[in-house]
Amino acid sequence: MTINTNLILLVEDDPDHEALAIRALRKANVANEISVARDGAEALALVDKFEAGELPMPQLVLLDLKLPKVQGLDVLKAIRSKERASLLPVVVLTSSDEERDIVSSYRLGVNSYIRKPVNFTDFAEATKQLGMYWLLLNQAPPIS
Amino acid sequence: MTINTNLILLVEDDPDHEALAIRALRKANVANEISVARDGAEALALVDKFEAGELPMPQLVLLDLKLPKVQGLDVLKAIRSKERASLLPVVVLTSSDEERDIVSSYRLGVNSYIRKPVNFTDFAEATKQLGMYWLLLNQAPPIS
Repeated sequence: MTINTNLILLVEDDPDHEALAIRALRKANVANEISVARDGAEALALVDKFEAGELPMPQLVLLDLKLPKVQGLDVLKAIRSKERASLLPVVVLTSSDEERDIVSSYRLGVNSYIRKPVNFTDFAEATKQLGMYWLLLNQAPPIS
Repeated sequence: MTINTNLILLVEDDPDHEALAIRALRKANVANEISVARDGAEALALVDKFEAGELPMPQLVLLDLKLPKVQGLDVLKAIRSKERASLLPVVVLTSSDEERDIVSSYRLGVNSYIRKPVNFTDFAEATKQLGMYWLLLNQAPPIS
């Protein structure tokens, strides 16, 4: 079973944000493979594949909250309910700064909550910083 | 009750690491007040004061694992068992790269796990980066 592979799962329904996030991660010299789920149902299907060992476990999940089909908080809940995938580092990256979203995310065990900056340059900079933090500095759990 | 005050709790028994961490945070323009607990028992006593509202809830806990009196993992467990303090962002900052410490930390709900670089310059740089991430980029939970 794979330990600390170099996959990032990006759960994002906005194509502009997807493109911007990927560009910013590349600029931060993040060479990881990036899988994109464009709605919550796609994300859940991928999480099931990680759990079953059909896909390598990612090193980081970047999770938007307002998603088609299945909400981000339900994706987070599903991840934390798994046996193996439960330890995955999950960072919420969302436009929402509603207190209930922040509190619910932490209650459900998110590792970190980042509000998407409105300005595109700031958004790219924030993504770059979080990429560097979680992929270079943080020690991800070895999931066997 | 205080929301997102600007306190950092540093739980660290090595005076060199304490001084280095504080210097690095200051260099990263982190202006937060820094409380230091020099063993696990001191940390538990402070957590009880946060929980009781006798001290403002910190924005971040930096937690060493190998501590006198009470181990870091037991401090983490105590934090996660509280009603209010359970949501506190906790970053383990430790010399240990033992797999069981990493896995136990994530199982107990740590937000992030950073291995202390051996080299002092790298240690300062890592502390600076994590300070910037958790104090400037991350949205801490509003704890009321």
